[in-house]
Amino acid sequence: MRVVALSGGIGGAKLALGLYRVLPPSRLTVIVNTGDDFDHLGLRICPDIDTTLYTLAGLANTELGWGRQGETWTFMKVLEELGGEAWFRLGDGDLAVHVERTRRLRSGETLSEVTRDIARRFGVQARIVPASDEEVRTRVHTPDGVLAFQEYFVRRRCAPVVTALSYEGAASAEGAPEALAALTAQGLEAVILCPSNPYLSIDPMLAIPHLRAALRACAAPVVAVSPLVRGAALKGPAAKIMQELGVPRAQCAIAGHYGDLIDALVIDRADAAEAAAVPLRHLITDTVMTSLADRERLAREVLAFAAQLAAGKRGRA
Amino acid sequence: MRVVALSGGIGGAKLALGLYRVLPPSRLTVIVNTGDDFDHLGLRICPDIDTTLYTLAGLANTELGWGRQGETWTFMKVLEELGGEAWFRLGDGDLAVHVERTRRLRSGETLSEVTRDIARRFGVQARIVPASDEEVRTRVHTPDGVLAFQEYFVRRRCAPVVTALSYEGAASAEGAPEALAALTAQGLEAVILCPSNPYLSIDPMLAIPHLRAALRACAAPVVAVSPLVRGAALKGPAAKIMQELGVPRAQCAIAGHYGDLIDALVIDRADAAEAAAVPLRHLITDTVMTSLADRERLAREVLAFAAQLAAGKRGRA
Repeated sequence: MRVVALSGGIGGAKLALGLYRVLPPSRLTVIVNTGDDFDHLGLRICPDIDTTLYTLAGLANTELGWGRQGETWTFMKVLEELGGEAWFRLGDGDLAVHVERTRRLRSGETLSEVTRDIARRFGVQARIVPASDEEVRTRVHTPDGVLAFQEYFVRRRCAPVVTALSYEGAASAEGAPEALAALTAQGLEAVILCPSNPYLSIDPMLAIPHLRAALRACAAPVVAVSPLVRGAALKGPAAKIMQELGVPRAQCAIAGHYGDLIDALVIDRADAAEAAAVPLRHLITDTVMTSLADRERLAREVLAFAAQLAAGKRGRA
Repeated sequence: MRVVALSGGIGGAKLALGLYRVLPPSRLTVIVNTGDDFDHLGLRICPDIDTTLYTLAGLANTELGWGRQGETWTFMKVLEELGGEAWFRLGDGDLAVHVERTRRLRSGETLSEVTRDIARRFGVQARIVPASDEEVRTRVHTPDGVLAFQEYFVRRRCAPVVTALSYEGAASAEGAPEALAALTAQGLEAVILCPSNPYLSIDPMLAIPHLRAALRACAAPVVAVSPLVRGAALKGPAAKIMQELGVPRAQCAIAGHYGDLIDALVIDRADAAEAAAVPLRHLITDTVMTSLADRERLAREVLAFAAQLAAGKRGRA
């Protein structure tokens, strides 16, 4: 069974880890959002790729919820003493990834190549693929002007009201070859949109024309796992942004957002009453992943659901 | 009293610290070798400037003999896991200096400006000035070819035989404005060549034409403190290089090396018998600086010696 997951950072990586643990690892490709990537202190930082790498490698800092376990913070302490920009916290070990990646990108390697090698070095057997090797940058439109993503997300802690989002570079980006290949591969059995923020984590990928087209043309069922539970996101500003954009914080709005790109939606049991309003096949289950067992259970259920959908698709074909 | 010291890394910084502690700090300018500087992992690394900064700021790692005290090494550990270049050890706190300096240099600040600000942030009240804002790079000629300085010094641990040295960029470098200003300042009372390696630490500075000319024209006495004791250097490859270049490992050779650029030489008591062969004014004293008190004592003695020489110069004028 070949499976592709599209994921952003923390929330999405939880399900990606579940999938990684229940599938033969070589069968999983995780296409990761690069809209959060930015250049900071002269370094290329790819937060969602790194969260995915650390999570699948078993290196994630589960206390902080981001970064690496066993991390030290000496760099940051001295950087602050030097009056450097300290609003984006970089752990000492994490920094090695940024320094090494930046060096390799400057020497001409693609982000896909660098990511593949780092994954291999960290012992990750699944393919972790950036959505694009070219720069795609999420811009957050607010009454104060257009903010770079990390300016909005980290520096201003998602406080500004979002009036619109745009994805600089996406329209002309090609999509990473391995991402496109995974979506068009023979034997692909499911595409899972992880419960990441649709606006900040999934849309920057869907805004890449070839990637969107590959998803639409995909023979395998495309299943989105909703990030909403009782009208709120477990983490991050998804619900806040929906409200600011005038979109109801409801499962039907998530379904409507992805439109005909998806075949089905996975909805939390707490929102079972909303299911009737979702104009798509759906699975109602527990989507909150607290333990590792939760991640694995949800992954299994989503895969089983996708298999049912695939049988249905084949039946209709 | 205004004093200028020319210094390389560890050995020279010991005397620079002594001078810093016995002089009103604002009266001391330390001109530091940049021939060891290099670009590594995309970062500009200035080992001698940093050693001088850390030493004068009281931040030096006295156990290791280089780097910062209270250092952590997480960056290096992860970099090794990633297969990155690990032969040059960079501590996590040290890295903040390299990252911040590199960022500022790229944004157009000069090395002098960046160094001045870092010194201020670390609470150093003396002026620490790079010999040049332009790149000067020591090249070590060996039977295996021409090696970049750190390739010779760190990676190959000074093992290759040195047949010659050259200082790329020195002939066309201007010399840092603050370095030249310090050497031509009214009221300058002494210039001290610290007991650094003449070939690797002092010569890259003397190879800068304006800096050499300023030193030669200097009204104040120029006093070199010999790095040799009993024909050996306390640290580093000075004696090995002298032997390889066919130069006697003797005090008279140090005097001959600096020639008419210096007025006097400070010689260790162990080499008192060699003093007669030194065709210059000389001071015989203990030059081995083990304790902080040693550094301060030697600094006081060298300053008193320079004051005597200055009185003599004035007497002759």
